Amino acid sequence: MTQDAARITLVLGGARSGKSRYAEGLCRAHGGERVYVATAEARDEEMRVRVRQHKADRAGDGWRTIEETLDLAGLLEREAAPGRVLLVDCLTLWLTNHLLGGSDIVGETDALTDAVSVFPGRLVLVANEVGFGIVPENRLAREFRDHAGRLNQRIAAAADEVTLVVAGLPVVVKGK
Amino acid sequence: MTQDAARITLVLGGARSGKSRYAEGLCRAHGGERVYVATAEARDEEMRVRVRQHKADRAGDGWRTIEETLDLAGLLEREAAPGRVLLVDCLTLWLTNHLLGGSDIVGETDALTDAVSVFPGRLVLVANEVGFGIVPENRLAREFRDHAGRLNQRIAAAADEVTLVVAGLPVVVKGK
Amino acid sequence: MTQDAARITLVLGGARSGKSRYAEGLCRAHGGERVYVATAEARDEEMRVRVRQHKADRAGDGWRTIEETLDLAGLLEREAAPGRVLLVDCLTLWLTNHLLGGSDIVGETDALTDAVSVFPGRLVLVANEVGFGIVPENRLAREFRDHAGRLNQRIAAAADEVTLVVAGLPVVVKGK
Repeated sequence: MTQDAARITLVLGGARSGKSRYAEGLCRAHGGERVYVATAEARDEEMRVRVRQHKADRAGDGWRTIEETLDLAGLLEREAAPGRVLLVDCLTLWLTNHLLGGSDIVGETDALTDAVSVFPGRLVLVANEVGFGIVPENRLAREFRDHAGRLNQRIAAAADEVTLVVAGLPVVVKGK
Repeated sequence: MTQDAARITLVLGGARSGKSRYAEGLCRAHGGERVYVATAEARDEEMRVRVRQHKADRAGDGWRTIEETLDLAGLLEREAAPGRVLLVDCLTLWLTNHLLGGSDIVGETDALTDAVSVFPGRLVLVANEVGFGIVPENRLAREFRDHAGRLNQRIAAAADEVTLVVAGLPVVVKGK
Repeated sequence: MTQDAARITLVLGGARSGKSRYAEGLCRAHGGERVYVATAEARDEEMRVRVRQHKADRAGDGWRTIEETLDLAGLLEREAAPGRVLLVDCLTLWLTNHLLGGSDIVGETDALTDAVSVFPGRLVLVANEVGFGIVPENRLAREFRDHAGRLNQRIAAAADEVTLVVAGLPVVVKGK
């Protein structure tokens, strides 16, 4: 890693915007050991099959996959290592898991932001931008949207680099 | 205000994007007397309490607050003054108030655009970007989305500077 | 067309973002013969009247209008000509027509991307960005959003220039 390279990158994007693929490209460019942190919770057999398949695909492509649906702060502390790059895909599913589990969202957001701020290695985090539509009629959807927006602001403030992916292409929001 | 400084700034952003905080920062940087124009209509006691609290908080922070839910054009004409900065937060709630009140939206949009165009001082306007989701199933939501998009285009054309706030960070759309 | 000019431009934007007007401006700047490719399907008499009116308005403004709701790939092959500019408005309605018609979306997306890639003249394509809201509750809306996102990524990769229109103003995403 050169002196100028970003340490913490937040990749934001809409649904099917190509944000995960863009984030994977950043990690490959880094060169070192690649760890993929999957936050998706496999809620049924169909999803378990799909998750296993993706994990096998990434293994063939040189990634080690860790599934962590809730304790991202603890994982970041444990897995930091020189020359290693971590890709967290994605923060929005992690938030969903905590909302469905009844967690203290403010506390979890604070703990994750702290863990990101002090992370000593190379870290790429993917999150959904979900606030550019009309106000949802569903109260839970409104709360989710508020929490996701606040989480993105906190992580963006802690990151060296923030990129918004539009139709597969990066728009620099912070850094370089 | 230096010769190069923007006179009229439109700050766009999604829900919980940090657009209001960013707009407040612009006004503090301006230095002069700060007037906060709140367009939110307090429809119940809970909201009245919250609005009073926000007003008190801003007063402690050096703002004078004016509540104006409908006649923004008249307010801009009355309140313009040398060295004073006005922050309108936000245009999207003002539009909502007019839609719920059965106003002539085209006429109101024209009148507001004219008032913004001739405003002689420093003005910062906040608005929601609401058109980047799928077409809403609800007809009123579709109409609201169309009116909000047209309003944002009109005000953006009249502004010297347009900034899109993404995760608390500014993306320059017009100006500088 | 100078050596530096874009050949293929994708104009993305939300609802009522001014994307069509911006795309029309690009075509006028080109100077050559202007062909407007309308993909909207007139499903009732009210819409047929509106489509005829728009067509007459554009004719007065120097455009030839072709209505093509499904076979855009074939049309691009037939209508390419030196000095001519084609404006396709819009890809998202074309996708909607194919989804409602039960087409093979992957095959149609591939064929259109190929036709865009080899198009020998000046081409401006308009599409909606629909993925920046919360996950829709409706399954069909979720599928549509996924297809639209993938289509935008494919066409963006084939384009020389991609512009996101925000409140009527262009944000360069690719090119120049």
